[in-house]
Amino acid sequence: VSARAAIVVTGTEVLQGRVSDRNGPWLSEQLSEFGVDVAAITVVGDRPEDMRAALEAAAGLGVALIVTSGGLGPTADDLTAAVVGEFAGRAMVLDSALEARIGAITAAARRRWAQISPETIAAADRKQATIPEGATILEPVGTAPGLVVPPHEGRSGPTVVVLPGPPRELQPMWAAAIATAAFAAAVPDRVELEQRMLRLYGIPESEIATTLRAAVDGGVALDAIEVTTCMRRGEIEIVSRFEPAQAGVYDAFEAVVRAHHAAELFSDDGSSVDAQVAALLVDSGRSVAVAESCTGGLVAARLTDRPGASAYVLGGVVAYTNAAKDAIVGVPADLLAAHGAVSSEVALALADGARGRFGSDVGVGVTGIAGPDGGSPEKPVGLVWLAASDSERQLIVRADLPGRRADVRDRATTVAMHLLRRLLLGEGEARAGGA
Amino acid sequence: VSARAAIVVTGTEVLQGRVSDRNGPWLSEQLSEFGVDVAAITVVGDRPEDMRAALEAAAGLGVALIVTSGGLGPTADDLTAAVVGEFAGRAMVLDSALEARIGAITAAARRRWAQISPETIAAADRKQATIPEGATILEPVGTAPGLVVPPHEGRSGPTVVVLPGPPRELQPMWAAAIATAAFAAAVPDRVELEQRMLRLYGIPESEIATTLRAAVDGGVALDAIEVTTCMRRGEIEIVSRFEPAQAGVYDAFEAVVRAHHAAELFSDDGSSVDAQVAALLVDSGRSVAVAESCTGGLVAARLTDRPGASAYVLGGVVAYTNAAKDAIVGVPADLLAAHGAVSSEVALALADGARGRFGSDVGVGVTGIAGPDGGSPEKPVGLVWLAASDSERQLIVRADLPGRRADVRDRATTVAMHLLRRLLLGEGEARAGGA
Repeated sequence: VSARAAIVVTGTEVLQGRVSDRNGPWLSEQLSEFGVDVAAITVVGDRPEDMRAALEAAAGLGVALIVTSGGLGPTADDLTAAVVGEFAGRAMVLDSALEARIGAITAAARRRWAQISPETIAAADRKQATIPEGATILEPVGTAPGLVVPPHEGRSGPTVVVLPGPPRELQPMWAAAIATAAFAAAVPDRVELEQRMLRLYGIPESEIATTLRAAVDGGVALDAIEVTTCMRRGEIEIVSRFEPAQAGVYDAFEAVVRAHHAAELFSDDGSSVDAQVAALLVDSGRSVAVAESCTGGLVAARLTDRPGASAYVLGGVVAYTNAAKDAIVGVPADLLAAHGAVSSEVALALADGARGRFGSDVGVGVTGIAGPDGGSPEKPVGLVWLAASDSERQLIVRADLPGRRADVRDRATTVAMHLLRRLLLGEGEARAGGA
Repeated sequence: VSARAAIVVTGTEVLQGRVSDRNGPWLSEQLSEFGVDVAAITVVGDRPEDMRAALEAAAGLGVALIVTSGGLGPTADDLTAAVVGEFAGRAMVLDSALEARIGAITAAARRRWAQISPETIAAADRKQATIPEGATILEPVGTAPGLVVPPHEGRSGPTVVVLPGPPRELQPMWAAAIATAAFAAAVPDRVELEQRMLRLYGIPESEIATTLRAAVDGGVALDAIEVTTCMRRGEIEIVSRFEPAQAGVYDAFEAVVRAHHAAELFSDDGSSVDAQVAALLVDSGRSVAVAESCTGGLVAARLTDRPGASAYVLGGVVAYTNAAKDAIVGVPADLLAAHGAVSSEVALALADGARGRFGSDVGVGVTGIAGPDGGSPEKPVGLVWLAASDSERQLIVRADLPGRRADVRDRATTVAMHLLRRLLLGEGEARAGGA
């Protein structure tokens, strides 16, 4: 069996539900890729006795490794290092060399924030440089160092990896942590599993249960691999994890999914629709522009989310009013009057208008009713019309999306991405006369 | 002191980081409102021994209540009820009346999924109707009943509230749970706390530590209230929770924060900058439009996130290229050539151009380098120029934002919201000649 780990996240704002925890899920995926199973993720506040109890509970699960996030800041209520030191049976000592390195980092902050007293900064530096004796230091990404803390010589128990709370500090530091000798010593017996992800779009999750049964009935030894399915942002993800020796079972399973869902299976390597759209645009040298209404900028934001997007995204218009649809995108006022803003005709006119205004090869148009107000019996909240077009072809789709305003807006961006993908793959009806 | 609770979430897909947990944060907020402090949120998979260990660990924290979510489904690996029964020292018994009520619900599903055998459904009904003896039943919202399970007579320990995993089942069932006698008996000594939130923008988190010390030095009995601070999306949140009798201490603390950070304290009632901008626009009857480059639609998306945004957002342009800035927003080509796209001059021209094109009262312009490519020594990644303007006044600000592409884009939207707020409050320099 593989080594197991536990994750302990500290943060009152996470515990009280005001901020959602990004570190627990991220660390869990990293550990899993690394061949270490996660037994539990625990969130506690900044009470040292609760933190200590969480470490003891994790140790009680028999894990080889505990990863903590948060509680490394400069203030006195950031207690993780001291609690972990006590847990590991190691005294807290000031590391002067580390104090100097942190001082060099905070000197920059000192210039920017002139109102902070040098004494405050020096106290903060000293606090952050006081670490369990014998711990391996992970160099600061922000100002806080991370730590790898094995149990004191002669004691048993898990090794604790101590990481800062901000994800942009934690994530780079993770790479440093797994490269340390102390980390490797804690999990010598890990089994690296293969992981594959299939993504499908356009079917309900219950369909997948039927397909899993069909695979078993067809003789695929699904017990030998671990399959989990989930619905996320309107897509189904099927994740399989297996020991390398079971690759044949996985291949047989994938073949069954492919046979049952040829039209809906859009990714067999885990790639997202976003990555596929980007690759299709880059490879073909085509450019895209957007004109969107109910999604309010989310489609443009999603297209520009990826590094290098400026190579193929020319821009977008958020046309929240009929006047803007007309004046800025060029949707004719009489078309708006005849069909209403939420209509297939206007969706196509937005896609074509985006192409025309920005001079892009491909256009995307989105118009709908995100709610909670603005719905009617004929055009209820959640109704969205979307179009993608180039000079030769066009695709138009109607979506009836469930949920609240944020759900409708988010889900509509997924529909838009898939529509764009299909157009870029050459689907779509030929345009009457060309445009 | 107030009663404490723990939350135990089961779900392999949450534990493995593929789905983010919505139930833990939601339950935490509910418990907090109810006057019960949450000590820990733990996520475990569907191994019964891990679930049992999580319950024992929660009991070890001395909580009066444990709330579980998930693991109530019809299949054999849904084990929560049995594990909780064992934890509470209660035998599992089939409740025939409950079995009949569940049968009436699944009869409808039987019509929809004709391929499932009646035997399979009957076994599922029986499984879901087998509950710890003496537990209080919470009627199913889907097909799974919830449970309130006190420790067996003569045993001590927390009462366990067992809820289903899907949020749309869990949330209505929570209301039923807190109305039961078994729930009230578990937390007789809850103290409803007051909660206040201050928000500040424009100072580092370490400054707050100094202010907390100043408050204590000035005689404020901060020990009597619970204060937590966190940095989120470039803002600092200070959350204070206290018994009603300590309101005077809180007022004194708030006065100290106000005296130290008059310029940075933008919210003393927890309202977000988004809510304030929306209220300022609605109350003044003014409208807004955006022209943004590096944020790629995120500023428009944030402004349109709120219900009713169409009353004051006219739209936006994502001008990702110089050609689009010129042709669609009307930023003069010679201005772009003279100062470069990332400059104070172009930020202002974007704000003014957005106003002009959409006919809005107020305009916002954003131009910068989100990275990872495109930076230079003079204009590094993270440099963003932002402007807000109306016909009489203008505000321009330079931001040097840390982090990766997503961080820079997100943080820039926060800077834009605060700039817009300041303009709407009447700040800004008078325009030369008017525009």
